[in-house]
Amino acid sequence: MNYGSIRRFLGIVLRFEAAFLLLPAITGLVYRETAGLSYLAAAFLCVVVGTFLSFYRADRGPFYTKEGFAGVALSWIVLSMFGALPFVFCGDIPSYTDALFETISGFTTTGASILTDVGALSHASLFWRSFTHWVGGMGVIVFILAIMPLTGGYNMHLMRAESPGPSVGKLVPKIRETAMILYKIYFGITVIEIILLLLAGMPLFDSLCLTFGTAGTGGFAVRSSGFADYTVLQQAIITVFMILFGVNFNAYYFLLLGKTWEARKEAFRMSEVKGYLGIIAFCILTITWSIRGFYDNILLAFHHAAFQVGSIITTTGYATADFNLWPQYSRSLLVLIMFIGACAGSTGGGIKVSRILLLVKSVKQEVLHFIHPRAVSTIKLDGKSVDKETVRGVNVYLAAYALIFVVSLLIITMFDDQDLETVFTAVAATLNNIGPGLAAVGPMSNYYHLLPVTKYVLMFDMLAGRLELFPMLILFVPAIWKPGRNRKRR
Amino acid sequence: MNYGSIRRFLGIVLRFEAAFLLLPAITGLVYRETAGLSYLAAAFLCVVVGTFLSFYRADRGPFYTKEGFAGVALSWIVLSMFGALPFVFCGDIPSYTDALFETISGFTTTGASILTDVGALSHASLFWRSFTHWVGGMGVIVFILAIMPLTGGYNMHLMRAESPGPSVGKLVPKIRETAMILYKIYFGITVIEIILLLLAGMPLFDSLCLTFGTAGTGGFAVRSSGFADYTVLQQAIITVFMILFGVNFNAYYFLLLGKTWEARKEAFRMSEVKGYLGIIAFCILTITWSIRGFYDNILLAFHHAAFQVGSIITTTGYATADFNLWPQYSRSLLVLIMFIGACAGSTGGGIKVSRILLLVKSVKQEVLHFIHPRAVSTIKLDGKSVDKETVRGVNVYLAAYALIFVVSLLIITMFDDQDLETVFTAVAATLNNIGPGLAAVGPMSNYYHLLPVTKYVLMFDMLAGRLELFPMLILFVPAIWKPGRNRKRR
Repeated sequence: MNYGSIRRFLGIVLRFEAAFLLLPAITGLVYRETAGLSYLAAAFLCVVVGTFLSFYRADRGPFYTKEGFAGVALSWIVLSMFGALPFVFCGDIPSYTDALFETISGFTTTGASILTDVGALSHASLFWRSFTHWVGGMGVIVFILAIMPLTGGYNMHLMRAESPGPSVGKLVPKIRETAMILYKIYFGITVIEIILLLLAGMPLFDSLCLTFGTAGTGGFAVRSSGFADYTVLQQAIITVFMILFGVNFNAYYFLLLGKTWEARKEAFRMSEVKGYLGIIAFCILTITWSIRGFYDNILLAFHHAAFQVGSIITTTGYATADFNLWPQYSRSLLVLIMFIGACAGSTGGGIKVSRILLLVKSVKQEVLHFIHPRAVSTIKLDGKSVDKETVRGVNVYLAAYALIFVVSLLIITMFDDQDLETVFTAVAATLNNIGPGLAAVGPMSNYYHLLPVTKYVLMFDMLAGRLELFPMLILFVPAIWKPGRNRKRR
Repeated sequence: MNYGSIRRFLGIVLRFEAAFLLLPAITGLVYRETAGLSYLAAAFLCVVVGTFLSFYRADRGPFYTKEGFAGVALSWIVLSMFGALPFVFCGDIPSYTDALFETISGFTTTGASILTDVGALSHASLFWRSFTHWVGGMGVIVFILAIMPLTGGYNMHLMRAESPGPSVGKLVPKIRETAMILYKIYFGITVIEIILLLLAGMPLFDSLCLTFGTAGTGGFAVRSSGFADYTVLQQAIITVFMILFGVNFNAYYFLLLGKTWEARKEAFRMSEVKGYLGIIAFCILTITWSIRGFYDNILLAFHHAAFQVGSIITTTGYATADFNLWPQYSRSLLVLIMFIGACAGSTGGGIKVSRILLLVKSVKQEVLHFIHPRAVSTIKLDGKSVDKETVRGVNVYLAAYALIFVVSLLIITMFDDQDLETVFTAVAATLNNIGPGLAAVGPMSNYYHLLPVTKYVLMFDMLAGRLELFPMLILFVPAIWKPGRNRKRR
């Protein structure tokens, strides 16, 4: 591995984090909390270490896929390690393991929390928790790429490692412009949501934090009462925006920047978006029916069904109802859509709708192949035939996914004697970046009571889930840690 | 579809079933039970309907893959429908739905039972239940192929549809000889087990029935007390034979019929067999450790761990201990190996070790590909590189598997309000042809209390699991039901 480039890159990442940390510091100032000073201290530390890492101007070796993947994985780990410090400094989360869990959960937009009482936190910490969602949602590295001119093959490799979905959504030929467009759309929808929530009478602080959580499909709450304090209208606005942030951003690109009507209609022709909205509609309707007895009227049942479905399929993880108590059909369906996840190219996690579509199509093709063995058939998506390499990539992805799932399950159950439903849904909820699971990690509970070893496994799962598995897996290959081998050879 | 050939083939299958039904009729005679007459009546019915179906000598159209697949699926359905009749006739299982569940569970070697008290059954019915395991284990159609000379492309298509594993194990060029060799090995090991159990002091009836269940990796018990009445030695013999019947039969072929020492050593070089035994060793050792506190001494813990691991990985489903009460690690590991299953080309079910090996290898290859993007790499198994079509087949298989799993889960939870662990493990235990699950369908419980709709879904899962999914899926394609279309076209 080209250590020089990686070190310099980590230095850049840390100095960006210093800038991010100034926001909670300012929040602390506004609310006159001493916690703000902890964030200032952490920012200072990031600048010092970041400058130190970038100090030696190592001669720039080549930057290949492996450097891109390892670089992104290490960036996220370092970001989380430093981002966890202020929680410990100000005493909001005394245990560093817990603080790290909370920070990784934030950046990976999981929203799984170890806090037993969210309301006891300082405003600075609440803001930081939610802001990590916003930064993590579209991607830290994508953000850096949008702002900093990095030269060379760098960009593509980095972006590929951080973007969700089976193929990189290069909207325009230049990576930097793509990153910029994505962030503009992201920023724009975020602002609209904040304004709508303010108009619906939500306080500014809540509007900001909850919007960050919605935009990144994260899911940290800001009040001990969860969502019970908010009005149905406020909850409904969040429902709509959760679903919007789970849509493939290419659709917004077509919609907003399409030159002609034809180009704009592309957005509605995307199979993934259609599949995503279709699944949501099916789930909301059947769950509404299944839980109709739990609420005063069917409209309220619909409201809660829509909120929970939107929250879970986009892997946000907000909860207005304790779905752990719902009938078995609703619970099973919610667990199922945990795995499906949102669209590729959105801020949501999970396996992604496009992968699911490809899988279903490949099964259908196989069955038809038995009937017409001589017919040559290809799998089509959006009218274009999908090349075999992409299909293969999806399959390998799922195999890797299953492996990580199983190994996590075994390691956790080896040490932590939780019931099967808790462990199973805890792994599902972290690997898919959702947040709450069922049983002991259900929506009205938290991850505090788990053993440290369990927490570390789940932290790995959160990072693996957010970075689409392979950047994290590659760290386990010993060959990658050999210094500059590639450079000398070629 | 070529209805003529299918009808004739179903006729042959039914007349074979008539012959099978004579065995429990004789058992009834030996024990002087009136139940024997019910089996005689069912046999008579099979002969009449079978002869009727084969009566019209339809002109033989072509017999393609789709006819092979649909033919096998329909054979198994018809076999089970007629095989369930004597249970109802003699009153041992009054409900036809329950009788059908029990029979499908028998033929598919699942071993999931709806009986609340096995001991109340007549000897004829007990014998029939266990004998369906033996017939279903190696395959009814393989049996017919071994005995009857069928002409034309028939054989390969039929055998392909019924054989477990990603590729057909054609041992010798001729299908009929392959089928014969397989049955000879199967019969040979069965006889050895019966003799050993008799030597260990087990009564003849129990020895026969339990051996049938072991050989087919089925799992029906013959006593209300389950395995509590048998000695540790008897249980240990069954442990060893369960594991032996989960080995790829090609290994026995090499071992027994290899001309040279080199050829015999092939058996120990097979990656699948090594993987299978490796997984078993790992599971037995770690579970022994996990349950050491539950038994008087570590040897007894080892004994029970070995029995349960052997029983579940081979998908037999016998139980000497209520593993539902074991620590979470052991329970999770047992659920996990439910999915792994035995070797391809054995009588066991599940996903099969060779498929798992290919999956792990493809993930490893993908990770290495990121490090050396320009290296051309292929996946190797047993020193030979696996062609892409096989890898693709394995992936599509898993996708289909996941789809059936999910749809089953949703249909069941929509109607039957069981807890998630029960439904999840019930589907796992039937789709993998194991038998007992956890919670309400655990080893000391049964499937009686489930709703009829749940039972029918699980029956489909048992058949799909035994026939490697696609023969059952193909029945849902409307195009297949059009009469003789293929014939006229080509």
